[in-house]
Amino acid sequence: MNEKIKWLREKLRGLNMQGMIVSNPVNIKYLTGIDAEGTLLITRKENHYITDSRYLEEVQSVLTIDDEIIVHNFCDISSYDYENFFSFCENVGFEENYVTYATYKLYMHLYKANNLEETEKILEKQRMIKDEKEIELIQKACNLTDDCFTHLLSYIKIGMTEKQIVNEIEKYFLEHGADGPSFETIVASGKNSSKPHAKSTEKQIEAGDPITIDFGCKYKGYCSDMTRTIFAGYLPAKMKQVYDLVLKNQLQTEKDMKEGASIRILHKNVENDFRLNGYTLDHSLGHGVGLEIHELPYISAKNDNLLKANMVVTNEPGIYLPGEFGIRIEDTVLITKSGCINLTKSEKNDIIVDRKEELFK
Amino acid sequence: MNEKIKWLREKLRGLNMQGMIVSNPVNIKYLTGIDAEGTLLITRKENHYITDSRYLEEVQSVLTIDDEIIVHNFCDISSYDYENFFSFCENVGFEENYVTYATYKLYMHLYKANNLEETEKILEKQRMIKDEKEIELIQKACNLTDDCFTHLLSYIKIGMTEKQIVNEIEKYFLEHGADGPSFETIVASGKNSSKPHAKSTEKQIEAGDPITIDFGCKYKGYCSDMTRTIFAGYLPAKMKQVYDLVLKNQLQTEKDMKEGASIRILHKNVENDFRLNGYTLDHSLGHGVGLEIHELPYISAKNDNLLKANMVVTNEPGIYLPGEFGIRIEDTVLITKSGCINLTKSEKNDIIVDRKEELFK
Repeated sequence: MNEKIKWLREKLRGLNMQGMIVSNPVNIKYLTGIDAEGTLLITRKENHYITDSRYLEEVQSVLTIDDEIIVHNFCDISSYDYENFFSFCENVGFEENYVTYATYKLYMHLYKANNLEETEKILEKQRMIKDEKEIELIQKACNLTDDCFTHLLSYIKIGMTEKQIVNEIEKYFLEHGADGPSFETIVASGKNSSKPHAKSTEKQIEAGDPITIDFGCKYKGYCSDMTRTIFAGYLPAKMKQVYDLVLKNQLQTEKDMKEGASIRILHKNVENDFRLNGYTLDHSLGHGVGLEIHELPYISAKNDNLLKANMVVTNEPGIYLPGEFGIRIEDTVLITKSGCINLTKSEKNDIIVDRKEELFK
Repeated sequence: MNEKIKWLREKLRGLNMQGMIVSNPVNIKYLTGIDAEGTLLITRKENHYITDSRYLEEVQSVLTIDDEIIVHNFCDISSYDYENFFSFCENVGFEENYVTYATYKLYMHLYKANNLEETEKILEKQRMIKDEKEIELIQKACNLTDDCFTHLLSYIKIGMTEKQIVNEIEKYFLEHGADGPSFETIVASGKNSSKPHAKSTEKQIEAGDPITIDFGCKYKGYCSDMTRTIFAGYLPAKMKQVYDLVLKNQLQTEKDMKEGASIRILHKNVENDFRLNGYTLDHSLGHGVGLEIHELPYISAKNDNLLKANMVVTNEPGIYLPGEFGIRIEDTVLITKSGCINLTKSEKNDIIVDRKEELFK
């Protein structure tokens, strides 16, 4: 049986659960490598994966004998079989944050389990700590993102539209071996940069615009996430001042992030420094990155936990001035016992593209 | 108040529900045009949309006074406000097929509604019938898909990999004004075509390969979906025979699809003809297309409903021979009172790309 499933079984035992229904496909991919539609059952002694004919060939090609997972076509399972999976189980876990109310009722009906128990993100919490293989894939996705950024610095010109730059980024990823973008690429210029989750538009880049580029790719299922705010033509004085404040806090957070650091305090420190300078931290400081672009842990003032070694999180302070502009600088970062390692390594000092010397004052 | 929300209110009244919590963002986009994260509350007399600071600017820019939707930042809502939204409501609907078990429990706690009632896909059913504007957007997405297919016929050459063709398709969509692909593009050649939901690989196209291309794009949120199986170099005799059988059934279904046609019988007819010829119909015959790539109605033997005018569905019979090859031909189709209109219009007779005369026997 693979290590990840062994770990889960151990954990379930501690919670006095004799089985679990795993429904979230991301959690199933994490545990088994299977990338399909189906349900994984961790029963008293066995592991079962129930899928349909569309995925049988694919699933069989991913699993090996060592996985110890019995694969079923759901058509072949009788109501009697369903009832037997969890016989003699007192408590069976389910994913209350993934499973719909309708599916919960269906599970109650199908499995006739004595007690379906909430598992409180047990697998999402397990996924926070990455193993070597996972870190390698995230590093690969981050390298592609850095390379793409280098390409953009010579590509971006005044007069291009935001969408044009988005397309270039997504083409770059496809042409260089990524699975695709890890989320909807953001290129937001001028006033549009004042929204933390801006949508890219047909707006053209103008001289004096900040351009916030928030992008990343997936590589073999694992995500990267990076933001740089760069400037077109020249860098206006007020933006430079805000940029320096954001960068100072991004670098300070980088120094502070390590095993044992309080997530709440990391967030609070940036919040306080922004406030001292007359600004606010309107968006959380970061989030976990892995098979999903946003996963645990969330780096926010509400999180009372400590960072642990082998977490991969973002470090992304930003200042957003509605109607004016926004600045965000973000890296994907690996937490270690003694500090953190930036997995994205692109230049963070302010960069001006398509520089217009005549516009400097 | 907009027509779609009026329609929903009418429907709720008929179900003796005095309000509804709409949580599915696709349903919210359908009702309001809002493309964000938040919750729409249809209360006794008002409509409320609760979101967070990230989306406030965006949401306000989409809504007009005529929408009659009051927008809230969730930070500003007290527990007292939550309890008041549905005061004097006997039954409040919720989306049991979208809302997780955990969220259901949260709603019970927050809104203190007397009775949260399952709404049985009320909005998904409303979305089956498209209005003029929606049909126009789907037609636009289908046109882009047809144009892309024309481009592919001269682009695809023996020796290219499946992934290379996928990239070309996705680049084409981005460069021609689509939002992006409407689902993970499938290019499956040779034996790989025998899986209905194949993943594209680094396999090279070989002479004599069938190439199943299943693709579509989104245009302003609305999807297209088309499949063509084409042939590289030459067309082997057995494949030609299966191709002709699939095409015959695709054309027959096209003739039969109209308002009032029994979905079950449409499916059964193809199933029977395949069986008569020694094959099976292993995959359902089609599905609705709209804001989502797969939506109601599903064209399968289990669906006892009739087609209605202004539904948009796919017509996609396929034969899959594991270890050998597969053939699928699919159009996106608009149902009318008297028949159906293909919204995708690409050539359906067998096409050979990169033709090798010397390989013909």
